[in-house]
Amino acid sequence: MVSPLVLSVDAMGGDFAPESVVDGAAIFFKGRRRPVRLLLHGDEARIRPLLARHPELAGRCEIRHTEKIVTMEAKPSEAVRRSRGSSMWNAVHAVKDGEAQVAISAGNTGALMAISKVILRMKAGVHRPAIAASWPVPQGFCTVLDVGANVDCDPEQLVEFAVLGESFHRAVHGVQRPSVALLNVGQEELKGDQVVRDADALLREAELDMDYRGFVEGNDISLGTTDVVVTDGFTGNVALKTAEGTARLVGGWVREALTGSLLGKAAGALLSLGALKQLRARMDPNNVNGGVFLGLNGVVVKSHGGTQGPGFATALRIALEMADSRFLTEIEKNLARLDAAERSRTTRAQETE
Amino acid sequence: MVSPLVLSVDAMGGDFAPESVVDGAAIFFKGRRRPVRLLLHGDEARIRPLLARHPELAGRCEIRHTEKIVTMEAKPSEAVRRSRGSSMWNAVHAVKDGEAQVAISAGNTGALMAISKVILRMKAGVHRPAIAASWPVPQGFCTVLDVGANVDCDPEQLVEFAVLGESFHRAVHGVQRPSVALLNVGQEELKGDQVVRDADALLREAELDMDYRGFVEGNDISLGTTDVVVTDGFTGNVALKTAEGTARLVGGWVREALTGSLLGKAAGALLSLGALKQLRARMDPNNVNGGVFLGLNGVVVKSHGGTQGPGFATALRIALEMADSRFLTEIEKNLARLDAAERSRTTRAQETE
Repeated sequence: MVSPLVLSVDAMGGDFAPESVVDGAAIFFKGRRRPVRLLLHGDEARIRPLLARHPELAGRCEIRHTEKIVTMEAKPSEAVRRSRGSSMWNAVHAVKDGEAQVAISAGNTGALMAISKVILRMKAGVHRPAIAASWPVPQGFCTVLDVGANVDCDPEQLVEFAVLGESFHRAVHGVQRPSVALLNVGQEELKGDQVVRDADALLREAELDMDYRGFVEGNDISLGTTDVVVTDGFTGNVALKTAEGTARLVGGWVREALTGSLLGKAAGALLSLGALKQLRARMDPNNVNGGVFLGLNGVVVKSHGGTQGPGFATALRIALEMADSRFLTEIEKNLARLDAAERSRTTRAQETE
Repeated sequence: MVSPLVLSVDAMGGDFAPESVVDGAAIFFKGRRRPVRLLLHGDEARIRPLLARHPELAGRCEIRHTEKIVTMEAKPSEAVRRSRGSSMWNAVHAVKDGEAQVAISAGNTGALMAISKVILRMKAGVHRPAIAASWPVPQGFCTVLDVGANVDCDPEQLVEFAVLGESFHRAVHGVQRPSVALLNVGQEELKGDQVVRDADALLREAELDMDYRGFVEGNDISLGTTDVVVTDGFTGNVALKTAEGTARLVGGWVREALTGSLLGKAAGALLSLGALKQLRARMDPNNVNGGVFLGLNGVVVKSHGGTQGPGFATALRIALEMADSRFLTEIEKNLARLDAAERSRTTRAQETE
């Protein structure tokens, strides 16, 4: 891997950009001694004064000026046609050009996906890319995908997502043989809709040398029942956002309990000396910000559109982990296995004809 | 309404029945002075000794003996053919016969739905029933439906669910004009899958005199952005179970913070005198147990299969609230409105031809 690592950032994407991006960079670099450089694509006149507030970023961030931006409202097809030269386009293109290892944007998800597909192209054997999220669970993380790239999925796509997700989990979370499951509404095979049942049959037949465990339900994600949970982008997105909402609701109740009365405040004061800090960190949605696009010839990280500095810093940390990982090699190995399995199935089908 | 109220219970349904059912009855009746009676359908030889442990239940519970039960593995179609005379069948039939106001079961969801449809029949104007869950939010409850009855839904069904859910929320949660939204992956109209977009168009055109607010996302459920959230049974079930899993995960972190160190324990001790009790109650999944089947000529409440006594007591409380409410009348009013709207749309369509 090239040294120093370079991350290519869409400095204008997101509701609070470019402030959130520069603040995020400052948090990301705090205490980091390793040489990492950021390319900040966007309006120099707006980014320059923000950087000036953080002298420690000098020499670590390079502005790549462009005035063009992709709006949050742009339709994906429109974005591809009209976004050439925008901060988002240029951020992704730097990965294609080999200038950077990973691109990061908090902009319009559909546009970012469409632009990434056009510039980086899909890996051979992948029909549709997916977005993977790393979900905190008691023993680490659960990889959930797709969390928003494809609202409708067929069984073959779900199988591809399983392959992509398993590679991702091994490369990024270091589990040698991740367990994989399909998200369903019941653990019995007779439940669930046809697409999920067909994907289950395909995964069982494919002989992928994958630790495939069958179906899990929504509560299994946070329990960490399996390392990887595969679903379509509609269900995955709803699940992810529902979990965020629930964590925030429960967090509010905890805060209320710790501040609502004099005794509660006293308890909070005691806790703040100890475990409250860890509790807060665990419950902070900023610490789980950053979906990774899987299936492309290059790595793109999508941050929440509504994120501020701390959330964007997490997206940068995830991008760095991806750059460090052997993810693209892992994916290629897995896709070769899927391809071999498909060939052998076709051959067997022909032999029985 | 008949007095005293009678609830008809499948005493053999659920992983821990009949123990969970009798324990639940004991918790339900604790401190309750109002005359309510339970019919316990099931194996007298197993239920009788459990009741003997709770002398206070004498005169409030009546055993209706049957040895036949519906297993958790039975397919819905199979259950309908073979379950005549089972505890589940008899529990629902008592509502049809006018012996009881509401039926409750923790048994096999698919079988309970199929049996309920056969015995109680759907209300005129309803094509498919839905299961509604009351989701705790900061200001009370959000009604989410469908949470598991229909894995595939067309736009017309989602419109019906909106009508059913609005009636339910008004009748049970006492909001005069509940706000209603469709669950989607983005708030912009261009996002989301075709079914959800078509349902949105139908709801806007239908002139239902409903406070319809368009799309919400997963995090809006727990925020309580709208009173009612409509989705298909696959997504709704995943969302509900994901929220349960997340609440349990965060609850574990809170417990860890409050017991992991000496200071944590001290803080927990202080809190337990005050707000911890309320916090525990809010986070206890037993307090949100009980989905209500909507769209039938009669009310059926479905408890979690894995519930113990405290959870089953909540299902009984929900059943009692339903019996007290004007829900069936509300539904009829709303369905008449939907019917009128459909007629007027058809007439207009014919006029423009």
